[in-house]
Amino acid sequence: MISVSLATPPKEEKIKEHYDVAIIGGGPAGCSAAIYARRFMLDVVIISKHLGGLITDAEMVDNYPGLPEISGKELGERFVNHAKKYKADFVEKFVTGIKKVSDEFEIKLEDGRTIKASTVIFATGETHNKLGVPGEEELTGKGVSYCAMCDAPLFKDKIVAVVGGGNTAFTDAQLLAKHAKKVYLIHRRATFRADPIEVERVKATENIEFVIPYVVKRIIGENKVERLLLRKTEIKDGKIMETDETMELEVDGVFIDIGLRPNSLLAQDLGVNVNERGYIIVDEDMQTNIQGVYAAGDATDKASKFRQVVLAAAQGAIAAFSAYKYLKAKKTKK
Amino acid sequence: MISVSLATPPKEEKIKEHYDVAIIGGGPAGCSAAIYARRFMLDVVIISKHLGGLITDAEMVDNYPGLPEISGKELGERFVNHAKKYKADFVEKFVTGIKKVSDEFEIKLEDGRTIKASTVIFATGETHNKLGVPGEEELTGKGVSYCAMCDAPLFKDKIVAVVGGGNTAFTDAQLLAKHAKKVYLIHRRATFRADPIEVERVKATENIEFVIPYVVKRIIGENKVERLLLRKTEIKDGKIMETDETMELEVDGVFIDIGLRPNSLLAQDLGVNVNERGYIIVDEDMQTNIQGVYAAGDATDKASKFRQVVLAAAQGAIAAFSAYKYLKAKKTKK
Repeated sequence: MISVSLATPPKEEKIKEHYDVAIIGGGPAGCSAAIYARRFMLDVVIISKHLGGLITDAEMVDNYPGLPEISGKELGERFVNHAKKYKADFVEKFVTGIKKVSDEFEIKLEDGRTIKASTVIFATGETHNKLGVPGEEELTGKGVSYCAMCDAPLFKDKIVAVVGGGNTAFTDAQLLAKHAKKVYLIHRRATFRADPIEVERVKATENIEFVIPYVVKRIIGENKVERLLLRKTEIKDGKIMETDETMELEVDGVFIDIGLRPNSLLAQDLGVNVNERGYIIVDEDMQTNIQGVYAAGDATDKASKFRQVVLAAAQGAIAAFSAYKYLKAKKTKK
Repeated sequence: MISVSLATPPKEEKIKEHYDVAIIGGGPAGCSAAIYARRFMLDVVIISKHLGGLITDAEMVDNYPGLPEISGKELGERFVNHAKKYKADFVEKFVTGIKKVSDEFEIKLEDGRTIKASTVIFATGETHNKLGVPGEEELTGKGVSYCAMCDAPLFKDKIVAVVGGGNTAFTDAQLLAKHAKKVYLIHRRATFRADPIEVERVKATENIEFVIPYVVKRIIGENKVERLLLRKTEIKDGKIMETDETMELEVDGVFIDIGLRPNSLLAQDLGVNVNERGYIIVDEDMQTNIQGVYAAGDATDKASKFRQVVLAAAQGAIAAFSAYKYLKAKKTKK
């Protein structure tokens, strides 16, 4: 979650009038694209309101080869600093619009300024899904959280629940178990998408208890989370159906880890094709359907099956290489 | 180059009778595959005579995101150690043969032992190309080298030549310029495949001189390299043609950086399809044409256009994921 403090107004970064490559998004894919584009001696700007990307929320990353057991925060910083070393420009602003004007792209920033670029790389990543149940919005920040990494220490010796069945839910549960007295892992199925090693680790953790198969129907509390209303599920004809059986669970907090959705609306506004789940469609060269427009990382259909930092970084490199080849060919033609 | 010392006979590593995944090759692709396969709780062996892979020859790597300005040796070690942390078994032996026997693969080692595995990942990388001119073989190790990283310090205040026009030739020339008095960069064209930033860097280095467009016809010397016989080239109908103009260049050493070829003979023996240049053909999931057989890294057709450590690592991760899904599906069927 991004908090903007009014006490420290965002500074006006110096930007050039025109860039060879504008990268939207400052996570592993965006930073890797910047590193490579700079190596190709292109003028590069990274526009990102969340430097380092979602990985910075991860308590511990142990699968980026060469950097074992690193905090997500440090890994994100390492990517950003690597790109800064290569003198990519950074602009910490939201993008409010993008359009193609003749041969280049005009990117509108929240402060009204416009950046022009010959090519664009969307490295916009994903956003957390919400449960969409009563109490969720009202109690966000009052016990409802989407970031265990950020908020786990607030629940020392308390009782918390994690909702979800993937790797994030399972690693978050382990992290929370170090702080909280008790962790419930609530999932709507009795099977899990999480890697077997993570499932084993959770099973071996004494203060984590599975609450399966249940769905959360309501988050209840005055001013802070007090309890959850759950409903048991069953599988009928391969589908998850809710039963009549309900229960309440007393908790001080609930962490919602039920997946993510791609940040691709901006790309769609520009006319970039996405798949049925909203992920940006790219070919092997990370090229979208629009000439000069590339995408890399978790917002792409290539990453959605296997979201890994090392893949995002590789895709960023490929996208930069494609942009370089495109610009070189264009220059030769002139 | 691999040197085997008779004084220290290779130790007999303990191996299991059967593995879920046998990875052939211990560079970034192989180690990344091992890390991921172990995260999926599979039994993994890496068979490699050259732990860390060819990247360990690089003086300095500055494009593996998150680890700027790291020596190739350290980067290779970091990959190996990451895989060791995950308790992959390592066997430092050559593979002399591989065959499919009913539902599994039998991998024959140089010491006569056999490793059985349910799946195989070829992460065999590439080998340096040779010029194929008189004197090259005779004077290898006597001034002819394929590894500037290994041998640059031997040429302190001497005169050396680098042959090639790609990134390796250009980064090697820069490295050699730090040691040698004078570096000639010989290339058969007047244009270069190397990244523009590397070309700029070489141009900015005072003691590097371009010798273009020339080809090396002969390496001359008694017991050690003394001079090179070069022949000027010209482009005719888009083809490189040799002219009548020759020259001799006095040098103490010559570094040959004219590309690499894939180590794919073992895979071909098993029936794996390769492209016209010998690179292993894989799909998006790093699957070859044989069920249960995957490939990753520089030996694959996917890497041959853009050989980068971060790509090899990403492909290793994908190959491991594919092997895991294949084994899981097989288990479910039984």
